[in-house]
Amino acid sequence: VTWHRETLFPHVAASYEVDRVLYQGRSGFQDIVILENATFGRMMVLDGVTQTTERDEFIYHEMMAHVPLFAHGAASRVLIIGGGDGGLLEEVLKHPVERVTQVEIDPDVIEISKRFLPSICRGAYDDPRTDLVVGDGFKYAAETENRFDVIMVDSTDPAGPGEILFGRPFYGHCRRILNPGGILVTQNGVPFMQGRELTTSYRHFKALFADAAAYVAAVPTYSWGFMALGWAALSPDYRALDRATLERRIAKVGATTRYYNGECHLGAFMLPRYVRELLA
Amino acid sequence: VTWHRETLFPHVAASYEVDRVLYQGRSGFQDIVILENATFGRMMVLDGVTQTTERDEFIYHEMMAHVPLFAHGAASRVLIIGGGDGGLLEEVLKHPVERVTQVEIDPDVIEISKRFLPSICRGAYDDPRTDLVVGDGFKYAAETENRFDVIMVDSTDPAGPGEILFGRPFYGHCRRILNPGGILVTQNGVPFMQGRELTTSYRHFKALFADAAAYVAAVPTYSWGFMALGWAALSPDYRALDRATLERRIAKVGATTRYYNGECHLGAFMLPRYVRELLA
Repeated sequence: VTWHRETLFPHVAASYEVDRVLYQGRSGFQDIVILENATFGRMMVLDGVTQTTERDEFIYHEMMAHVPLFAHGAASRVLIIGGGDGGLLEEVLKHPVERVTQVEIDPDVIEISKRFLPSICRGAYDDPRTDLVVGDGFKYAAETENRFDVIMVDSTDPAGPGEILFGRPFYGHCRRILNPGGILVTQNGVPFMQGRELTTSYRHFKALFADAAAYVAAVPTYSWGFMALGWAALSPDYRALDRATLERRIAKVGATTRYYNGECHLGAFMLPRYVRELLA
Repeated sequence: VTWHRETLFPHVAASYEVDRVLYQGRSGFQDIVILENATFGRMMVLDGVTQTTERDEFIYHEMMAHVPLFAHGAASRVLIIGGGDGGLLEEVLKHPVERVTQVEIDPDVIEISKRFLPSICRGAYDDPRTDLVVGDGFKYAAETENRFDVIMVDSTDPAGPGEILFGRPFYGHCRRILNPGGILVTQNGVPFMQGRELTTSYRHFKALFADAAAYVAAVPTYSWGFMALGWAALSPDYRALDRATLERRIAKVGATTRYYNGECHLGAFMLPRYVRELLA
């Protein structure tokens, strides 16, 4: 029996029995593996790190999509940076948005996801509201004339090629291309293991946006405690949203979810002390 | 390099590099290993399953102790079933309780924890308020004439020797020995992997108590998403506690914590959909 052994953090590993390797190759940017595990289903592994699995992708993708979209309440234009597996795009398209622009740097990730992970992207790339740009997300944010209500940064980890998506220049570009009242959310790693990365992003948010925060989700394959999502908004009011308004919006859109709901939307911002203390 | 490889759930494993094995032996009840890992510090492993580590024990122990004690607000007598490492006892003793009875079946776990994990139990066994009973928790709950305001079941997993602590007879005994308004909390596993166990406990709680629920915490070494703690109370009001009252109680007791705070106390009951749906 072969195992995929993830050693993202020192001295520990999360391992997955490999029933079958469906794809293995090197794109212009990274090593890409699609494997099958009896507990998590098909898994996409980039440079040795698990990015998404059929069985638990709903948690991360729902929390990254629905929290800012329901908080905003009237998002029409959405920008996704990264997210080549299409799972986040699929969640965003459950909302009555006009247009979703997705900027993914690696075309192989998109093609391989469409071929091997159809249960994750579910035809999202064929939706007429999808505007797919194969290119560099940093450059796109720096140069585009388009404007967005919500920006979601579905990146790989703050170390390696994705690092540029965690710096102040990039966040500044995001602010520039947000409409008034816009919201930026970011993948911000596992604070128990990578606490400094969250603090760094938070300080950039604080310097640039009216509201800076983080929220959390417990994703089985992002091991070692909560994962953090960064939150930066041009309006300070969204987090004070009352439960009744939130539930009305959810009922109106009627999106089917398996993790996200009104209670965990509000609960995700209620941080344990060690995470709260990183926001300083 | 040797690794401790935990295979509690099929087809996946969490692994820890072993720098040193400080103790390895078999008690009358289980295999006990104390090992040292550079990321998690000293770890106690029972029958191959990680029970507690120096680095992350605070999360589980704080959430099991402080949530029911601050919700209750006036607990004087507390019963801990299991919890031989002493970490839960230490958290409970931060409250102005009169007496804490701890019933642990395996005396070796207590002695080995005192010797090798002093940072976890921190002298809790020497506190004059501690009443240590070495014995069977099920039998104790069935027979004792004592009464308690809060009972905490800090057991191993719902499979194996701890299984009897997840059945209706045991929960019935707990109800019998609770004072009016008493609260029972239980270790209830990882619902992403062991969903049925949570449903089973919840149904027993519902049949026996005025209030039945669950709350969650993200514990790095209890892998694969949230862990669930079961909640059964003889008063239905505790979960409706307002934030201001809770914060006043926390300030008055002044316990030092690293995970628990007023916001995550309330947020822990705000469950994601897949956990909420298991409570049915």
